[in-house]
Amino acid sequence: MAHPLRQHIEEIISLTDEEFDFVLSHFEQIKKRKHQYIVQEGEVVNKEYWIIKGCLKSYFIDANGKEHILQFGMENWWITDYESFVKQTESKTFIDCIEDSELLYISFENRDKLTAQMHKMERFWAKKSKMGRIALQNRILSLLKNSTKEQYDLLLEQYPKLFQRVPKKMIAAYLGVSRETLSRLNS
Amino acid sequence: MAHPLRQHIEEIISLTDEEFDFVLSHFEQIKKRKHQYIVQEGEVVNKEYWIIKGCLKSYFIDANGKEHILQFGMENWWITDYESFVKQTESKTFIDCIEDSELLYISFENRDKLTAQMHKMERFWAKKSKMGRIALQNRILSLLKNSTKEQYDLLLEQYPKLFQRVPKKMIAAYLGVSRETLSRLNS
Repeated sequence: MAHPLRQHIEEIISLTDEEFDFVLSHFEQIKKRKHQYIVQEGEVVNKEYWIIKGCLKSYFIDANGKEHILQFGMENWWITDYESFVKQTESKTFIDCIEDSELLYISFENRDKLTAQMHKMERFWAKKSKMGRIALQNRILSLLKNSTKEQYDLLLEQYPKLFQRVPKKMIAAYLGVSRETLSRLNS
Repeated sequence: MAHPLRQHIEEIISLTDEEFDFVLSHFEQIKKRKHQYIVQEGEVVNKEYWIIKGCLKSYFIDANGKEHILQFGMENWWITDYESFVKQTESKTFIDCIEDSELLYISFENRDKLTAQMHKMERFWAKKSKMGRIALQNRILSLLKNSTKEQYDLLLEQYPKLFQRVPKKMIAAYLGVSRETLSRLNS
């Protein structure tokens, strides 16, 4: 069976065995336990992660100490603080593991080298970046329309398996509502 | 003096004269008058626009008929409904001209052909897409933090010249506040 990353990339572009080995040689693999961080606020993030197995969340803490969840990540998703990674500035967000997780990561330098050398991988990530942008635009539309029910439905559409995997309080933190409001939406 | 689009592209990648002519041959130029549309809700958008001159806004109308501004565009900005353009689905947004505008546009097919043939242009748009994603992520952070003052400051940072060019009611529609609240922020 093909490597899961290869299956994932080949949804967009096709690779020869040699090309995939070359791509994979730019990645490292790590395991993280539940509650461990991969990104902390204030650090310059040098890695983009691809989730082989597990579940993570990206979030920030507001001035009142309240946690706001920006994004969840599960199998086959890419996750990092993109502003920090792309501009090499300090991260505004935290990313930690909701479950024990297995991740592949690529450094900023390796990603830049790989995309400069391989047009196909530039194209692959360009497509991923466009899809990420669209997901964010839909979240903004949803936030501006200001209906919690619509935000809930969008979350369910984006992450159908999420609701069985993460605590209800995290769904509430994503939607910016109380547990009680969430229960009403859920019923 | 170099073509403004060439100057813009060469902030990220460099092009020979022949390469730029080839790139430009994939674009068409149009003029639009104030109030004219380039994108309407419900249509499948086939063009991405680059603004030579003028000012535009992208927005959607909620169920109560209220206008929410998603993005402004001015000289050197790219604008379209990205979800509709990338996925070839129906647009959720409108885009119209706040001033008389001169635009270059590239069709979906030409953009796909150009990026497939020219790695450099794939790289250019990949970078632009990443920056667009970052701008949207910051807007979400700003919306979730829910401080209108911070949203106002972010808008001022992203579009420093905007405040002299667009009516105050549009700034208010971007921030989702009344004209009165805006006046207090502004003072």
